[in-house]
Amino acid sequence: MIPEKQIPTKAFVVEAPHAPFVLQDVVLDEVRDNEVLVEMKFTGLCHTDIVVQQGALPVGDYPAVLGHEGAGIVRRVGKAVKDKTLKDGDQVFLSFTTCDSCNPCKDGRKGFCRDFTNINLAGVRGISAADSPISTPAGQPVRGQFFGQSSMSKLAIVNEASVFKSTYKLSDLDFAALSPLGCGYLTGAGTVLNILKPKPKSRFVVLGMGAVGLAAMMTARALGVETIVAVDIVDSKLELATSLGATHTLNTKHVTDLAEGLKEIFPEGVDNILDTTGVIPLLQSSIAALGHDGTLVFVGVAPATGTLTISPLEIMLSCKRIIGAIEGSSDPAKLLPLLLEWYNQGKFPVDKLAKVYNTDSLDQALEDLQAGKIIKPILRWGDI
Amino acid sequence: MIPEKQIPTKAFVVEAPHAPFVLQDVVLDEVRDNEVLVEMKFTGLCHTDIVVQQGALPVGDYPAVLGHEGAGIVRRVGKAVKDKTLKDGDQVFLSFTTCDSCNPCKDGRKGFCRDFTNINLAGVRGISAADSPISTPAGQPVRGQFFGQSSMSKLAIVNEASVFKSTYKLSDLDFAALSPLGCGYLTGAGTVLNILKPKPKSRFVVLGMGAVGLAAMMTARALGVETIVAVDIVDSKLELATSLGATHTLNTKHVTDLAEGLKEIFPEGVDNILDTTGVIPLLQSSIAALGHDGTLVFVGVAPATGTLTISPLEIMLSCKRIIGAIEGSSDPAKLLPLLLEWYNQGKFPVDKLAKVYNTDSLDQALEDLQAGKIIKPILRWGDI
Repeated sequence: MIPEKQIPTKAFVVEAPHAPFVLQDVVLDEVRDNEVLVEMKFTGLCHTDIVVQQGALPVGDYPAVLGHEGAGIVRRVGKAVKDKTLKDGDQVFLSFTTCDSCNPCKDGRKGFCRDFTNINLAGVRGISAADSPISTPAGQPVRGQFFGQSSMSKLAIVNEASVFKSTYKLSDLDFAALSPLGCGYLTGAGTVLNILKPKPKSRFVVLGMGAVGLAAMMTARALGVETIVAVDIVDSKLELATSLGATHTLNTKHVTDLAEGLKEIFPEGVDNILDTTGVIPLLQSSIAALGHDGTLVFVGVAPATGTLTISPLEIMLSCKRIIGAIEGSSDPAKLLPLLLEWYNQGKFPVDKLAKVYNTDSLDQALEDLQAGKIIKPILRWGDI
Repeated sequence: MIPEKQIPTKAFVVEAPHAPFVLQDVVLDEVRDNEVLVEMKFTGLCHTDIVVQQGALPVGDYPAVLGHEGAGIVRRVGKAVKDKTLKDGDQVFLSFTTCDSCNPCKDGRKGFCRDFTNINLAGVRGISAADSPISTPAGQPVRGQFFGQSSMSKLAIVNEASVFKSTYKLSDLDFAALSPLGCGYLTGAGTVLNILKPKPKSRFVVLGMGAVGLAAMMTARALGVETIVAVDIVDSKLELATSLGATHTLNTKHVTDLAEGLKEIFPEGVDNILDTTGVIPLLQSSIAALGHDGTLVFVGVAPATGTLTISPLEIMLSCKRIIGAIEGSSDPAKLLPLLLEWYNQGKFPVDKLAKVYNTDSLDQALEDLQAGKIIKPILRWGDI
């Protein structure tokens, strides 16, 4: 029986920037009216968790519980939660959180929420830095509700804006594979569906064959794009990309210049480039590689000091577009059901990207991720 | 009676880059099957004519007849012209020309035609540089069909893709005022309608109160945008902008930094910035001035060597967009009727921007334009 207040659980805590993820006892205060208590079954690990753990996005306090690709079971529903169908036992995916009052939110372009960085990265209830649902057993506050959830925790008090009921009853195997649906997969798919909107003949390139890039590639494939170029520096990832529908691959370790490599495939230039790498020389080359009426979308996290040079005359004469995008400008309430349907139809086989680790193997998971051995590590919470 | 072949007429010829516009006798060969002979009544002068006269856009041969804002009367229709309603005596507006076979053309985003620069600036029939309808009486070839028309000419053989019948029977006064409809006014209006798509609450800024900028401003106003900032360096243009609906003005001669000036008006940043100036420091400031989910569109002609520095991390985190646009991504067949309707309803009062000059006063018109005394000079062809 979960107590009403001072709920004990276990979570991975990051004590300070660069400190490791350490599984330890924490206490959750209580479920507020607009919150949902979720028992995590699986949590995907995303590059953004690691970036924040390493202090490279200087927003929010420490110690902190990160994690923002949670998939779990509803255990308690706050009195004022708007989704009145939500109940104890429901399978839910956790996604980013939104203010739901700014123009992008009202337009359904929720990933573009004006408060996105603040309310997702600062990771606290609402936008008050002083207020968190998590503390140590000794009473020290811990940053919680990272992306509305802080799902590197067995139990989590989640902002209702981050909770989406699964439209299918999923087996453990599928639920695990799909746990990154609310962030990584939604980001890749949403960027393609909401921003690039390619046509079958569009000349399509994805940089970086991580979870976001592969999800983008699978989405382009699902939309019937005929020519898709996968770019990475790891041959095994490019092989996986080919098996999932990429028609061409480019290993940038073996080409001197990305633009030159792409020109061989697309002499008239590229229509769509989706970057998940944030690598400055690749981005600079990408601008040159765009053809007339071409679009480059920045999805990856570039270095804070990294800059690019652009020629406004060239961009005007070539009708090029450079676009920054968060979470694929998606509305999870609309996109997650579509992606679940595609998964069931075999058009979005994200199970091919997942490897499940028990919570005592997190270090191994991070090591494998770093080494490029795996695409998407997923934590299984089990009975801890 | 206009002869079938070797049609004599008068046109402003530019002998070489930097040479003046000189009104002289020229000869038009014959109207081909997909062409229309138009007797010009009025021709708007556009900044692009002057840029090309000065050799700053190094595309196409000299001598050349420029001019691409023609308004005139149909005098002969080629046998294969697709618009079968077109006949001798029709009032027509001349606009840019398009290949009508690339993807943007097929999508109705004709300003983004992949061959735009080539077929409009090189200014020849089709894309063959050896073929022009114009020559001197001595037989020297002269670049013609600039923007499909070369309308700085009493008579012009115009590519059918550039010919649009007026949906209203217009008085001479209105026809003169509207002659720039197919380029300058369409560019300003189309960029707002097709790319920026502002909402009433959008924080809207236009840089440069020339014909394009003012047309953009009037379009935003017609769409009900509540806050519109006009930016220029000439106070009289800013006064005109205010009289036409700008709610705020900024004279960049009097502010040290555009971004700072805009921040005072919009502390949360700007949603839409439409640049018609191509002035590098203003563009650099504009990127900084954009708010979250903000869009900057390059419409103006920046210097060929001018560059800007952008931070991909900042663009991603702020979901900013930088877009290059030609002719407002417009389909003149759809946009010109709308703008004519707006003009008749008083919602697009471009007559306030026009000053008509006889052909013997072209030098005065250019001088007045250069001095910022007028917004849009329009040549009246009369009975020459």
